[in-house]
Amino acid sequence: MTSISVLGLGAMGAALAATLIRKGHAVTVWNRTPSRAEPLARAGARIATTPAEAVAASELSILCVVDYAAAGSVLAEARGALSGRDLVNLTNGTPREAKNLAAWAEMEGVNYLDGGIMAIPPMIGEAGALVLYSGSTALFERHKPALDALAESRHLGDDSGLAALYDLALLAGMYGLFSGFLHANALVTSGGGKAVDFLPLLLPWLKAMTGTLPDLAGKIDSGRHSDNVVSNLAMQTIALENIAKASAEQAVAPDFAEPMLRLAARRIAEGHGSDDVSGVIETVREKK
Amino acid sequence: MTSISVLGLGAMGAALAATLIRKGHAVTVWNRTPSRAEPLARAGARIATTPAEAVAASELSILCVVDYAAAGSVLAEARGALSGRDLVNLTNGTPREAKNLAAWAEMEGVNYLDGGIMAIPPMIGEAGALVLYSGSTALFERHKPALDALAESRHLGDDSGLAALYDLALLAGMYGLFSGFLHANALVTSGGGKAVDFLPLLLPWLKAMTGTLPDLAGKIDSGRHSDNVVSNLAMQTIALENIAKASAEQAVAPDFAEPMLRLAARRIAEGHGSDDVSGVIETVREKK
Repeated sequence: MTSISVLGLGAMGAALAATLIRKGHAVTVWNRTPSRAEPLARAGARIATTPAEAVAASELSILCVVDYAAAGSVLAEARGALSGRDLVNLTNGTPREAKNLAAWAEMEGVNYLDGGIMAIPPMIGEAGALVLYSGSTALFERHKPALDALAESRHLGDDSGLAALYDLALLAGMYGLFSGFLHANALVTSGGGKAVDFLPLLLPWLKAMTGTLPDLAGKIDSGRHSDNVVSNLAMQTIALENIAKASAEQAVAPDFAEPMLRLAARRIAEGHGSDDVSGVIETVREKK
Repeated sequence: MTSISVLGLGAMGAALAATLIRKGHAVTVWNRTPSRAEPLARAGARIATTPAEAVAASELSILCVVDYAAAGSVLAEARGALSGRDLVNLTNGTPREAKNLAAWAEMEGVNYLDGGIMAIPPMIGEAGALVLYSGSTALFERHKPALDALAESRHLGDDSGLAALYDLALLAGMYGLFSGFLHANALVTSGGGKAVDFLPLLLPWLKAMTGTLPDLAGKIDSGRHSDNVVSNLAMQTIALENIAKASAEQAVAPDFAEPMLRLAARRIAEGHGSDDVSGVIETVREKK
């Protein structure tokens, strides 16, 4: 078992600490507002009164606070204790924030691993939870048994920014799914339908459409967007325009469909109307 | 077996006619450009030289042209032959276009059923194809065996606009899925990753996220968006802002995530920051 300090006891940090305690690790906790540590102390955690004391107490420190501004404050307070230590940062942020913090950690002699949690707090320690890591492979290998107590652990590479990038990419995929779901249900309910009655049509349809994604992924990688196209962008634009028109008819905001209509129109204007929908990624990536 | 005329022999109309011939129906075809009818004639179809002749030839006429402007032209030419006939219109359009055509059909004494095809042409007559219908229940019941030869047939109600509404709602859901998929892959490939390597992470994640949709559907119907919320809009906005920031860092267009960020911000500004993401539908529906 590993001695582990958890710094930051919001909903996620508290779930991490509670899971590590439950799985038999020696856990020290610290939080800016000390009362959040009390339930964990009753469960067996040691309470540290400063970030430096927390970092000094354990082989591994896990930082999980609200954002990188908060992370910077906590690490500044722990500075004297950090050199030579192992730090896993699970704070949400962007790839650049992760890389900047990794650069700072290197200057300070801290072993740094960045992570992105693909789960909500109640899922921590349960099947289905996933944490993406990037940065120090040595640190990841050293602490993999402890990290595996929290979730399935996946190391993406040495580039510290990759975990944040893939975390946000997965969330972008999820928000696309939610955007389409809300638009679809706004249309159906505007016609008097119920969302729960529409689900038996919508869920199998979405599942069938995910079956087209491997083909689109291949086209994204090869750049050959006009190979074996069943419905090209010029044809798909007719459907997108009908979605926008129907939304206006039904007093539903067309906002969720507009980016695809706009970016597809740009791709068509560039001479690629015979592309599959995958070709739209070229207009998404070339924005500088 | 039913005698059926198919008017319009684009990729979809030709697939409908070929499938009906293959399944033993007596098929008459008409197309503005006659050469498109020749392969179907070789397969056993009779060729009509005018829309009126096509409509007069069969118990049931199926119209499938590029848009409602084309549909209006074809029906104007067939006008003298239409009274008392059964017409199924599978032309893509909006609910209002369908309802307007249904009103015209009623004035003309035509039995009218509107349909939305949830399939691509090669899927017609195969498992997985679905056609949504709305309008005359009597017509639907009378011709269901013939319509079932094309796809699974689902009648949504007497309101002629429902098939177009549900068709476009399903497509809106699909375009949300595609939008998120393209955004996710733009981020991953901007960091040097491959879309095909990312799929084994993305597909299970999207599948897991579809598991949250039944709960969201219940909240949409009840309007109780702040019941049992794990991650509320205020928290989710932090992730959405990180997606936008990371997109800017990676030279990826943030467009696909912006509607959710904008509509969630509006919902939060209206005092509903503790809502689940389902609450965003209230800002989608209230736009007038």
